[in-house]
Amino acid sequence: MSQTIGFVGVGRMGANMARRLHDCGYRITAIYDINSASAETLAQELGSAASETLAGVTAAADIIITVVTDDAAMRGIFAASGDSLLIDAKGRTFINCATLSPATHLAVEAAAVALGAHTLEGCMASSITQALDGSLYLMVAGRPDVFESVRPILEKLSNQMRYVGPSGEAAKVKALVNMVMNINTAGLAEGLGLADALGLDLTMVREIFSQTGAASRVLVTDGEDMQNRDHACFFSAAHAAKDSGIALQLASQLGLDLPLATATRAQFERMVKAGLGELDKSGIAELTFRGRS
Amino acid sequence: MSQTIGFVGVGRMGANMARRLHDCGYRITAIYDINSASAETLAQELGSAASETLAGVTAAADIIITVVTDDAAMRGIFAASGDSLLIDAKGRTFINCATLSPATHLAVEAAAVALGAHTLEGCMASSITQALDGSLYLMVAGRPDVFESVRPILEKLSNQMRYVGPSGEAAKVKALVNMVMNINTAGLAEGLGLADALGLDLTMVREIFSQTGAASRVLVTDGEDMQNRDHACFFSAAHAAKDSGIALQLASQLGLDLPLATATRAQFERMVKAGLGELDKSGIAELTFRGRS
Repeated sequence: MSQTIGFVGVGRMGANMARRLHDCGYRITAIYDINSASAETLAQELGSAASETLAGVTAAADIIITVVTDDAAMRGIFAASGDSLLIDAKGRTFINCATLSPATHLAVEAAAVALGAHTLEGCMASSITQALDGSLYLMVAGRPDVFESVRPILEKLSNQMRYVGPSGEAAKVKALVNMVMNINTAGLAEGLGLADALGLDLTMVREIFSQTGAASRVLVTDGEDMQNRDHACFFSAAHAAKDSGIALQLASQLGLDLPLATATRAQFERMVKAGLGELDKSGIAELTFRGRS
Repeated sequence: MSQTIGFVGVGRMGANMARRLHDCGYRITAIYDINSASAETLAQELGSAASETLAGVTAAADIIITVVTDDAAMRGIFAASGDSLLIDAKGRTFINCATLSPATHLAVEAAAVALGAHTLEGCMASSITQALDGSLYLMVAGRPDVFESVRPILEKLSNQMRYVGPSGEAAKVKALVNMVMNINTAGLAEGLGLADALGLDLTMVREIFSQTGAASRVLVTDGEDMQNRDHACFFSAAHAAKDSGIALQLASQLGLDLPLATATRAQFERMVKAGLGELDKSGIAELTFRGRS
């Protein structure tokens, strides 16, 4: 527990991961967020310090966990000039937990390694409640010795960890997971939307789905919410659109045509354009139920 | 067990249902199939009689179980003129187990009831192995007293029975089940196809899918088959195209736009056009893996 930990990006996931590690006895020595009030509030809660600069986090912590929104934000915090996590980064280990394109992970790794720092991908396939109770499903990629050096920390965050391979590989698998999850979510919304239009009892339909080839994890996590229009956000429609986009970009580079993933991204982008992007992904049912949107 | 049973349509599902009821001690007194050799072979196996006419089945059995391919075949066996199951049908009960449009169930019921016969929908959400061992998931619709009159027979076929409502309702739910199942199948094929193109270990990817939001029943039933190109048919791509089409027709009548279901039907229709329609639905992976089709 002698390693000190910094956090960059303390939205609900990052904040809960910080709370969890603090609860486990780790010292969170620096917190940065583009929204400085978020960093201040969490720093007070955890007896930590909000950092006004990215460089300040690197200066204050051995291990820096980053949970930012997208590729652009990630490249911004690891910028080659101006304020950056890379300033005096020698010996530091960056654990990057956002869902990003593989190329961004590789670019960040190359820049960090050139300065004598290390990076690891820790892609999460879980949500905010799992972050708080240490039960994240974590897909790890990077150098095995770097993984070993931070394994005790990761084990406090995750009860299911899977080493996937070299850097960039976890981002690939994560993009696939979310692409398939988003397809299943969009498909479920169509099934329940049609059931509703047919005048069927949705509770009965969900029960039958659960016993048949229509069963899925998203039926369990999102089916009732679709029925009840409870779209409090665990994983936003905007994130779903972004993640399906990462997978589709990989597919495009490889010359693959994926019509279901394409249709799914279009649906989540419709939500964003309709101002529904901050609803939970279950909110896609607002597009498929008659009279809702 | 005093009720005698006839079968119309003894493809692999119908034949296994007949075998199961025969094994349970029921007398299968007449078997008809458009392919008369299939009827002859099964009749010999079960000590039954192949009927050369539909009317002959109605004459020989109290309960007639029909398992035909589609709406057109169903309307053909219940034709208003010529050879038909409706000839001298008074007092008979027809249990219709094919996946049909709700409108066809209602039309057949109206014609049968006018002659003093009864009908019941017994929509199956399972496959040939479950038909043989009596573990079908059965969605039943029709008049409750008709259901009660044949319940002992259905209980030999199904260990999970769900009464859905009046005639036509089971067909609606079945269309929804298969529509969502087909979407999940097509989406899984895209996920594994992209994983393969990315050079990832598909066994690892399936294991990760199973632990995350990408998990689904079709991952369990079809994932390994997609990886291994084992597309021996349990539920054909041609049937998947047809069933998604039934759901989309219902949606169209109600003014609903379902982009995922539409894209899924197009994929299964591509298989049919490519001569792959008799592969199992898992064969959709042949479209999404590079270098396969």
